[in-house]
Amino acid sequence: MTFPPPHACRIDVAAGTMAGATGTYQKRLADLVGLYADAAAFAARAEKEGTRVVYDVADFRPSGAPGDLIFGVTRMSPGSIGDEFFMTRGHIHAQTDRPEVYYGQKGLGLMQLESPEGETRILEIGAQTICYVPPYWIHRSINIGDEDLVMMFTYPADAGQDYGIIEQSQGMRHRVMRDGKGGWHLVENRDYRPRAPEKIAALLQAAQ
Amino acid sequence: MTFPPPHACRIDVAAGTMAGATGTYQKRLADLVGLYADAAAFAARAEKEGTRVVYDVADFRPSGAPGDLIFGVTRMSPGSIGDEFFMTRGHIHAQTDRPEVYYGQKGLGLMQLESPEGETRILEIGAQTICYVPPYWIHRSINIGDEDLVMMFTYPADAGQDYGIIEQSQGMRHRVMRDGKGGWHLVENRDYRPRAPEKIAALLQAAQ
Repeated sequence: MTFPPPHACRIDVAAGTMAGATGTYQKRLADLVGLYADAAAFAARAEKEGTRVVYDVADFRPSGAPGDLIFGVTRMSPGSIGDEFFMTRGHIHAQTDRPEVYYGQKGLGLMQLESPEGETRILEIGAQTICYVPPYWIHRSINIGDEDLVMMFTYPADAGQDYGIIEQSQGMRHRVMRDGKGGWHLVENRDYRPRAPEKIAALLQAAQ
Repeated sequence: MTFPPPHACRIDVAAGTMAGATGTYQKRLADLVGLYADAAAFAARAEKEGTRVVYDVADFRPSGAPGDLIFGVTRMSPGSIGDEFFMTRGHIHAQTDRPEVYYGQKGLGLMQLESPEGETRILEIGAQTICYVPPYWIHRSINIGDEDLVMMFTYPADAGQDYGIIEQSQGMRHRVMRDGKGGWHLVENRDYRPRAPEKIAALLQAAQ
């Protein structure tokens, strides 16, 4: 296995970008079809603003070797579809026993976490908040503020991402919605299908 | 293996501390005996200020499991012994193929890196600079500014630290010294003993 030499990157907090990255990707509004409770509101928005970039990521990937680390920065626009805040698609790591560390840089967000068994935890992330996502937890970030949410992140290079896990259960168990008083609250996702015991066992045993 | 639940920490950049840490440690001036070229200047300083804290670390250690991540914050005072800047003891990871990611928060520092073969690389770290320390590289941080150097860091939970590697070669190959013009330059460490080929091979093969 070969590794790159010592390397420096520089985060521009205001722009949510990183100089020295090895790659970038963007998600546009139309890419997030199926994520939001209010499908009609989403369709109307996507027709007008489908190509608008709602979040982007710049990362540095030194190698895919076990034990190596990927890091980068993510920026998410503020906004909502109906009463539901802009959010990422969300994932569990393909190698399920891999954690992730997020470090808030700007704006105000939530990390929504869900265990394989279906327990929800919410952590608030502002500037200088570090969020530890333990192994086995599905996670999604949500912009509940009125400016860009910018976070630095690091995760093991062999972690991978499994985005299908959330689709398979028809969303995460809870939705984070505007509460009508300037804040947020959790609402049960009525479409949610709990994972079967054998699926839970497979997720928890995947890398033991 | 059990992991802690989702967890948030908060970095105070001005103070160089982290709320929500699981542990902290401090290095005092007297702990750094043997590190500096000017032993007489060090002895005189240590007699007066030996108990002064020169750097400290707060970290969150979820587990020691392979693939898990430790993170934290480090704060280092500005200063010098003779013409040599305050610096950390330096280490290679005990599991030598483990990297580390440092993220500058405040102040101005250098990451001094040395490969097992004895190649030196220097990366400058200011606020919002991320420094990738590749697997196998010995590394030390140096405060070349006139205020605290504060950095966030992350590394694999099974990495460990080997501090003896630098003592065994009687220091790193180069010393970072004040250049008399307000900057720094590299000076050869005349006591440096290159590692033997079999030692280099052992370091590079340790975890393959």
